[in-house]
Amino acid sequence: MVYYILVPIGVGLLAVLFAAFLINDVLRRDTGTPSMQKIANAIFSGATAFLNRQYRTIALLAVGAAVLVAAALALLGQGTLAARFNLAWHTALAFLVGALCSGISGYTGMYVAVKSNSRTASAARRSLGEALVVALRGGAVSGFLVVALSILGVSLLFTIFGGLSSPATTPSLIVGFGFGASFVALFAQLGGGIYTKAADMGADLVGKVEANIPEDDPRNPAVVADLVGDNVGDCAGRGADLFESTAAENIGTMILGATLYQATGNIGWMLFPLVLGAFGLIASAIGVLSVRASAVIEPEKAAGRDPGQIAMQRLNIGYYITCALSLIGMFLGCYLLLGQSSVSANYGLPAWLWFALAGTVGIALSIAFVFITQYYTSGTWRPVREIAAATLTGPATTIISGITVGFECIVAPVLAISAALGLAYFFGSQVHIPLASLGSINVSGIFGTAVATVGMLMSCAYILTMDTFGPITDNAGGISEMSGQAESVRAITDALDSVGNTTKALTKGYGLGSAALAAFLLFSAYLDVLYSFRHDPAVYRVDLANLSTFIAGLLGLALIFFFSSLAIRAVGKAAGRMIEEVRRQFRENPRIMAENPDERVDPDYARCVDISTSGALRAMVLPGTVAVLTPIAVGVILGPQAAAGLLMVATMGGIVVALFLNNGGGAWDNAKKYIEAGYLRVNVKGEIVPPDDPEGIVLGKKSEPHKASVIGDTVGDPFKDTAGPSLHVLIKLLSTITLVLAPLFYFLHV
Amino acid sequence: MVYYILVPIGVGLLAVLFAAFLINDVLRRDTGTPSMQKIANAIFSGATAFLNRQYRTIALLAVGAAVLVAAALALLGQGTLAARFNLAWHTALAFLVGALCSGISGYTGMYVAVKSNSRTASAARRSLGEALVVALRGGAVSGFLVVALSILGVSLLFTIFGGLSSPATTPSLIVGFGFGASFVALFAQLGGGIYTKAADMGADLVGKVEANIPEDDPRNPAVVADLVGDNVGDCAGRGADLFESTAAENIGTMILGATLYQATGNIGWMLFPLVLGAFGLIASAIGVLSVRASAVIEPEKAAGRDPGQIAMQRLNIGYYITCALSLIGMFLGCYLLLGQSSVSANYGLPAWLWFALAGTVGIALSIAFVFITQYYTSGTWRPVREIAAATLTGPATTIISGITVGFECIVAPVLAISAALGLAYFFGSQVHIPLASLGSINVSGIFGTAVATVGMLMSCAYILTMDTFGPITDNAGGISEMSGQAESVRAITDALDSVGNTTKALTKGYGLGSAALAAFLLFSAYLDVLYSFRHDPAVYRVDLANLSTFIAGLLGLALIFFFSSLAIRAVGKAAGRMIEEVRRQFRENPRIMAENPDERVDPDYARCVDISTSGALRAMVLPGTVAVLTPIAVGVILGPQAAAGLLMVATMGGIVVALFLNNGGGAWDNAKKYIEAGYLRVNVKGEIVPPDDPEGIVLGKKSEPHKASVIGDTVGDPFKDTAGPSLHVLIKLLSTITLVLAPLFYFLHV
Repeated sequence: MVYYILVPIGVGLLAVLFAAFLINDVLRRDTGTPSMQKIANAIFSGATAFLNRQYRTIALLAVGAAVLVAAALALLGQGTLAARFNLAWHTALAFLVGALCSGISGYTGMYVAVKSNSRTASAARRSLGEALVVALRGGAVSGFLVVALSILGVSLLFTIFGGLSSPATTPSLIVGFGFGASFVALFAQLGGGIYTKAADMGADLVGKVEANIPEDDPRNPAVVADLVGDNVGDCAGRGADLFESTAAENIGTMILGATLYQATGNIGWMLFPLVLGAFGLIASAIGVLSVRASAVIEPEKAAGRDPGQIAMQRLNIGYYITCALSLIGMFLGCYLLLGQSSVSANYGLPAWLWFALAGTVGIALSIAFVFITQYYTSGTWRPVREIAAATLTGPATTIISGITVGFECIVAPVLAISAALGLAYFFGSQVHIPLASLGSINVSGIFGTAVATVGMLMSCAYILTMDTFGPITDNAGGISEMSGQAESVRAITDALDSVGNTTKALTKGYGLGSAALAAFLLFSAYLDVLYSFRHDPAVYRVDLANLSTFIAGLLGLALIFFFSSLAIRAVGKAAGRMIEEVRRQFRENPRIMAENPDERVDPDYARCVDISTSGALRAMVLPGTVAVLTPIAVGVILGPQAAAGLLMVATMGGIVVALFLNNGGGAWDNAKKYIEAGYLRVNVKGEIVPPDDPEGIVLGKKSEPHKASVIGDTVGDPFKDTAGPSLHVLIKLLSTITLVLAPLFYFLHV
Repeated sequence: MVYYILVPIGVGLLAVLFAAFLINDVLRRDTGTPSMQKIANAIFSGATAFLNRQYRTIALLAVGAAVLVAAALALLGQGTLAARFNLAWHTALAFLVGALCSGISGYTGMYVAVKSNSRTASAARRSLGEALVVALRGGAVSGFLVVALSILGVSLLFTIFGGLSSPATTPSLIVGFGFGASFVALFAQLGGGIYTKAADMGADLVGKVEANIPEDDPRNPAVVADLVGDNVGDCAGRGADLFESTAAENIGTMILGATLYQATGNIGWMLFPLVLGAFGLIASAIGVLSVRASAVIEPEKAAGRDPGQIAMQRLNIGYYITCALSLIGMFLGCYLLLGQSSVSANYGLPAWLWFALAGTVGIALSIAFVFITQYYTSGTWRPVREIAAATLTGPATTIISGITVGFECIVAPVLAISAALGLAYFFGSQVHIPLASLGSINVSGIFGTAVATVGMLMSCAYILTMDTFGPITDNAGGISEMSGQAESVRAITDALDSVGNTTKALTKGYGLGSAALAAFLLFSAYLDVLYSFRHDPAVYRVDLANLSTFIAGLLGLALIFFFSSLAIRAVGKAAGRMIEEVRRQFRENPRIMAENPDERVDPDYARCVDISTSGALRAMVLPGTVAVLTPIAVGVILGPQAAAGLLMVATMGGIVVALFLNNGGGAWDNAKKYIEAGYLRVNVKGEIVPPDDPEGIVLGKKSEPHKASVIGDTVGDPFKDTAGPSLHVLIKLLSTITLVLAPLFYFLHV
């Protein structure tokens, strides 16, 4: 059984090779016309300059954090000096490896993404199919590196730290890996999110609203910063986010698996998440490769179908292939790793089958989230149309309506998560594993939720591929607009851009859903660690009737809002500086907007890039530090059970607030697009008519409702692209930070 | 000791007489000029028409709810048929009495308030002092009736239901009183809140923004509806809210006191909240009477001081008198009622002194909330100025900045509540009461938090007086504006109006703070009830590590957002109809806006009043029903511990979301006022300069920043006056509903 560790290591290495193959495949393609290359180069240098500075800052913070954590564990923990020192250096090393792997995957993924944009734009001159494939493969580099390095990192650390000879005690040595990943993810997502939205708001508010020039117009000084932002925010940030998800979930499952290993002697419980992650990589690779240029019907042969629909359909087919293969992998993996355990289960079914059913719940949840997210953020359904209708009465009602939708959209995902957690727990608890009573916790039930999370994350590489596809096609659209391509080329890149918007929104939903599903597992991992210090079932109780736990929970909830506030304010401030700069350039250099195109001069793009860069780097430190220090302070002052209370309530709060921010922002965005597409129509009395009513008066671009919708979109920008995604990271950071510092909290309160 | 019950009954009856004296004092004053009377009559008939229809609807819902609750307890509870029937009819009767008392106090208070407005306007023609006194005494009718009827209701029901002979079992028979009060409060606050903001938004968005006429201009068709709304929303709604606070807190303390009574044989523990409430009424009456017309320095003698400052100072002195007397009452009450217990305490101090210290914490918290609320919602400090600065870059940044402030302002109150809870619990737990171990709960510690809540609520009548002062002065301002009074009169009513805005904001903070402080007590009351069914300390555990409790908590959090969404949406819809109506009137009847005042005709005020009325009544039912049914569904399906999880997490969520909505909305409102007052100034480069810089260019009314600030204010309206205050009520409703239905939840899951 122990040799199964070779599966994640082998597949992980193969996935790295696959990423290398994709890099080669993308880079050998043509880079387009000189004007395309010029813009692409500007984006490339802006993005790498930002990332270099950002990762330098993060590296400093990470080394400092590693030293502090090691010192705290070595000085304040309990046991012999040797034992404390042992834990300290393992944790610090794992932390740095996690941080490094996260950095490498984020950086490389983004490097390839900004190399893919002009190649996608160029491919769009030839065919939809080729453009789709280039963008998808460019995105897949990020997707596969992230997942592969995460699995490889955990597998190798586990092996090197002696996991194969003493499996039970090793997982607690590698929790630092998850903390390192979270730590980098937090700052990467915050910095990238602030960068992208400061640039976007600056570009939109002055360019589109005040100067009345279209999106991605080369006269807009902030346009390059905006295109850079798409990469550093969506691509590098989300990569770090899901790197962390995979790492935290794997480690959490291994900690839980260690308990089951001790009860059954089967190491399969512990290797399960790693092996299944490897299976998921294979499934995702097949899914990505199934999207072939030759399989795409070109627009001119498509009998009037929208090229965006055609492309989205191909991506969906690839996703369903991935899910179907994951399902097979799930049953196979459960059979191989959990099947040999001599454990009994209810209804005469074998134990592994119950867990496979739990895993199926996770895969089903990922699909459910796709539909729920689309319902709330797509113009086809009621919520977005409600916001579009509210634009008729101005910006105030537009904002109110969007917040209403954002508050409302929490319900369905919460019900889905609750049902999935309940079902997976139920399936898992049908298996009887002889264990000491652990308070109200049923360990095999919790393992059921772990298997569900594993199932949900099997398609992670594919989802991340679709996500990074987003900024690539967004950039490709910007490049063809700015380089003045023909209408037919722009139709293709615009269509892919709108597909990218959809896939980005889906990834956010997926990231949040998997974080929520994993949360319960990570709570129990934390409680398992406490239990390892004191074998008392009472440590498994996180009792809100206990005042300090209640207060910690309340503080956790306040942390969620305070953190969001800091993140949004950072965007507001950086955007304010950007707005002033863009206005200044228009004012001081009227030739930027000269009537005659021959007299025009380029605006100073680099200055806007600089403003976003320095603004983001300065602004990411405070929210990040607050997020890291609050759980530490609560754990140190109020003790380990209070820390668990903070962790749990903050996680709940993070889930609902992130749903509000993500979906509210997405709905505003698409209400604007709905209006721009000409679907908002009224009759002569000013009453709304259906979007396809040919008699309806179209209230489209530049109408008053459109202006109101742009305001809504702008408000939603920092919600959905800065604060919301940063909250995903925050809730996982809270889990990993409490896991790592559990010894500290515990021994200070013995 | 048992005769102390005569204190709340006697003082309660005296307070009702005091209210009658105030009614007489206000009504005998002159009602102003004929034009004032005409407007006041329009407001009066609109307000009573709405309240009549609203209370008819609520009465139907309440009778239905009483029947259903009684049936559920009689059919599905446990014990003999006689025992079940006994509980059922007591609960239903108490429910109806609670609902009736809440209705009477709300209705009468509002009746006097709408009779006080023209009298205040008329008094303003004579002096600031007289206008202040009239408005304050008009408001005091509401304040004293609410608190007196709440205390009287609980005291009399307790006595009649046999509390003096069998104290231990009686509190569980009167929990229905709290539920009835919450039930009415929920619908009163929702209906009133929707009414007022639909009218306000309609009046502002069309009148001020589109037609460019000032606030309260008689040409605005929605102006009367707006003035009516101030009464039915702020006055009737908040009255019901604090009626419920007092009732729930008294009953919760008595349930807890019953446990202590059984341990010590001293009924003082149970009578404590009622007697202290009576002391608070006396303190508040002295506070109100201390504000005398002769003590007010008139503006012309005030050496340039703002009349608003003078008035606010008088109100503050009255409040400090109330607090000081409450403090004396607290020490006296603890000594008399808790001093004779033969219980020991730490550090050689008598037990009663520890509790008096806990009560002091509550009084201190009420003062702390006053300052925190002012910091976040007053133009003197950073948050409001930050929003005002953001208006320079348009509505989008105004909204973003307001949401940032709203998210941020959660932190300080949460820290204050946490500290107060922790301190009060600590003081209480210094007292040793011999009891069986009740899980992790220290009963005397919880009683400490109960005493703190009692302390905080002692000034309730004074605070409510200041609150109702708000709509009276708001109306008085509208009446003097519409009846065209001299500048000097309007200066006085405007100043009082702005004082009223401050006092309204303070009351919201106070209401929320007391709800938060009481929450822990109400949780433990619920757990006490469960313990009375099964004497097992395990019922005192609300363990988030238990999956169903966790899921219930997550659902509770989702409920908070969903309920807020429904409440805000209801306003949006009703406001949309109002906007259309106002636009229609301007369009179809141009003589409303005729240049020459002699040619003008009055708009159709009544139609706007009708639209608000029907919109509010229709819209209040759905959110109210969701709020009532969700905890019942969770308790029935997932069991009593899960219901406790929902209760606790939803309470935390309700506290933070209400803080966000109240303070965010208030900050937007005051950012607008800040700009209107001419404090937003820039230099020639467009950079902000200090508000008193004489060289600064004032960006005041009708500037672009002002328009942005009006949009922010409009967005904040349904936040701060509909959803936020309704959440206060919701969290107490959750407590009372779970208390009442605890037998059901328990016996369905035995």
